[in-house]
Amino acid sequence: MGAFWAEARARAARLDAADPLAEMRALFHLPAGLIYLDGNSLGPAPKAAPAEVAAATRQEWAEGLIRSWNTHAWFDLPVIYGDRLAPLIGARAGEVVVCDTVSINVAKALHAALNLRPDRSAIVAEGAGFHTDRYIAEGVAATRPGIRLALEGRDAPRIEDLIGDDTAVVLVNHVDYRTGAIRDMDSLTRAAHAAGALVIWDLCHSVGAMPVELNRAAADLAVGCTYKYLNGGPGAPAFLFCASRHLPDISQPLSGWWGHAAPFAFEPGYRADPGIRKFLCGTQPILSLRALSPALDIFDGIDMDEVRAKSMALTGLFIELVEATCGPLGITLASPREAGLRGSQVALSFADGYPVMQALIADDVIGDFRAPDILRFGFAPLYIGFTETCRAAETLHRIMATGRWREARFQARHTVT
Amino acid sequence: MGAFWAEARARAARLDAADPLAEMRALFHLPAGLIYLDGNSLGPAPKAAPAEVAAATRQEWAEGLIRSWNTHAWFDLPVIYGDRLAPLIGARAGEVVVCDTVSINVAKALHAALNLRPDRSAIVAEGAGFHTDRYIAEGVAATRPGIRLALEGRDAPRIEDLIGDDTAVVLVNHVDYRTGAIRDMDSLTRAAHAAGALVIWDLCHSVGAMPVELNRAAADLAVGCTYKYLNGGPGAPAFLFCASRHLPDISQPLSGWWGHAAPFAFEPGYRADPGIRKFLCGTQPILSLRALSPALDIFDGIDMDEVRAKSMALTGLFIELVEATCGPLGITLASPREAGLRGSQVALSFADGYPVMQALIADDVIGDFRAPDILRFGFAPLYIGFTETCRAAETLHRIMATGRWREARFQARHTVT
Repeated sequence: MGAFWAEARARAARLDAADPLAEMRALFHLPAGLIYLDGNSLGPAPKAAPAEVAAATRQEWAEGLIRSWNTHAWFDLPVIYGDRLAPLIGARAGEVVVCDTVSINVAKALHAALNLRPDRSAIVAEGAGFHTDRYIAEGVAATRPGIRLALEGRDAPRIEDLIGDDTAVVLVNHVDYRTGAIRDMDSLTRAAHAAGALVIWDLCHSVGAMPVELNRAAADLAVGCTYKYLNGGPGAPAFLFCASRHLPDISQPLSGWWGHAAPFAFEPGYRADPGIRKFLCGTQPILSLRALSPALDIFDGIDMDEVRAKSMALTGLFIELVEATCGPLGITLASPREAGLRGSQVALSFADGYPVMQALIADDVIGDFRAPDILRFGFAPLYIGFTETCRAAETLHRIMATGRWREARFQARHTVT
Repeated sequence: MGAFWAEARARAARLDAADPLAEMRALFHLPAGLIYLDGNSLGPAPKAAPAEVAAATRQEWAEGLIRSWNTHAWFDLPVIYGDRLAPLIGARAGEVVVCDTVSINVAKALHAALNLRPDRSAIVAEGAGFHTDRYIAEGVAATRPGIRLALEGRDAPRIEDLIGDDTAVVLVNHVDYRTGAIRDMDSLTRAAHAAGALVIWDLCHSVGAMPVELNRAAADLAVGCTYKYLNGGPGAPAFLFCASRHLPDISQPLSGWWGHAAPFAFEPGYRADPGIRKFLCGTQPILSLRALSPALDIFDGIDMDEVRAKSMALTGLFIELVEATCGPLGITLASPREAGLRGSQVALSFADGYPVMQALIADDVIGDFRAPDILRFGFAPLYIGFTETCRAAETLHRIMATGRWREARFQARHTVT
């Protein structure tokens, strides 16, 4: 195999030399010696993040105290960051707000969609999508009498077959968290609209890794997380998009004071802000929010088509090298083979995937494992290069070829988020 | 007035010298020259907070990356901090979780209480309590057909008169955000229970400033914020208490994956954690959460009765000095005069309160203004002393006596949170 890997490394080096995004890597803190292929779970820290968080802590909180709510626009950060995030998802200013968690925002979006379709009773969702979406949909359905949940994979094989005259809203992931399969946003949105239903797009696994064009697709609502490909920090607040055409009439029941039209007027009754602020609820975690600012800075001026092209090349190279060397050792591809159908991650299937991933991590290649048998590798084009992609494949091959993953120390389970 | 203030200052100095909590002030960062009487809105930074946040940012996020979810117990912080907070509110370990916002937690608690009382249809709340509680109650009632909201001050003068056979849950503040009036927890909880209703206590303006004994009062649910008297940082995650006797049967509809009994098993359906984790929903903002750790450290070993005694003495001194000097100039007391009925704040009423507060802030005495006419001063016993309390009163008197607040620059309104 020596010649194979020597050739692969030479090819990777040529690809790195020609990579127009290569210089972006210098903007991130990446621990020396580590190949980090888990940015689809938690993105690395922008080098500017610690200073930003320190300023928010020392100058703004400790020195500025209560005055910083005004002098540092803390109250407006959810819309300021929402406006900055909007171009990354094909939205306009005033259509995005950064707040709370994906789970909470899914609840808001589902209730809001149901409120716009009061005569319909079905929520259509994915049986195999990221579980919190489904769990929240269950909670929403249980709260509203007469609302039922129809699941792809349980109630019909394809989500399109579940959409009908009674469908109020379709909740789907743009990119599947497990396999990385992309769902076509334009066609599914069209199908839902043809049936009179609304669509909520969960962008957790696409935003920051590929172009997302919500308004081009005429999407209604979307949610997403900022700590994966956007690199906003652990548990950074999530976002919610609502198309401006819906804003005048839409409502959501988590009607906290931050969503009020006049939060400081202390009015007796709730009166929703007429714009995107109506999706805010309570006071936001300022220190965690602020880490998002340098993360968004990095995307200023980035060409997302260039990001997408590199993403497809990285995942394509990894698949090619792994299949050639580890295919005969029992590893199969669980992601779509066609690059155009694949997000920025590669999922591999192997029955003993758990100890294999532990052995990889011990060798400084970090991906993650998803039960029952998925090895998951994220390729974030802003900081992952072709040479390290090649090295990751070579490390996996060595672990498989030597059987090193069978060592007892790699078998013991622990939680990996 | 010179002799009056000289005597007052001498008395304050004696009180400071005898203050058993005087040394606690050194644990906080307090900007030089500032008298900070707004810790009931945003508490100051513990001196240890910036290093804690920096460690979470640099070592844990930037260096540890995804591994920190395990190695730094990020996933368990909501219950770890909940257990540390529990003694401050008279709760046991396993009854408190730190997460999300007060508004979101009020929604969870209201739904949970309604789920435990499915045959009852009324939520009873305060017409004049902090508005987000009422707004959220409106949203919950609008989501659940047949649920109505009865408000103290609108539907009856006293909340006790609204509690009846049809009351599912009573949502009340322990200490009123405006006047600082304390509501008797034991007697109101008894009255609600006698009617078969549950009670949710909002502890935002009591926790950290006075003893709170939820289990002694047999309270059912409680919520509260960590960025006021607990000093957890701007927008630090809130908390939720549920009495352990209710945990087996209670449920709430914001059923996100963090509340699942096995969040990493990726089960198809939602199955709530049997314990307090069932009140979690989505991924928590780790950097903001971590600032809470040094804040809670400060309360370790603190005698809350000592805190309460000092709080009553501080507010009592301020009221005495202000009434003697500013009473003749038109300022009246809006807080309860009896110390036992008063939280750790003093509310003063003055028609032109807004420019008076602006003039005070310009003179480095920071309180806040609440429309239409309330000057609000928080006296956090851990870092506020008697001498500065005296100086704050003297500054207010000077502003009132000279009419300095009438200057044009103090009239222009801006938002103060």
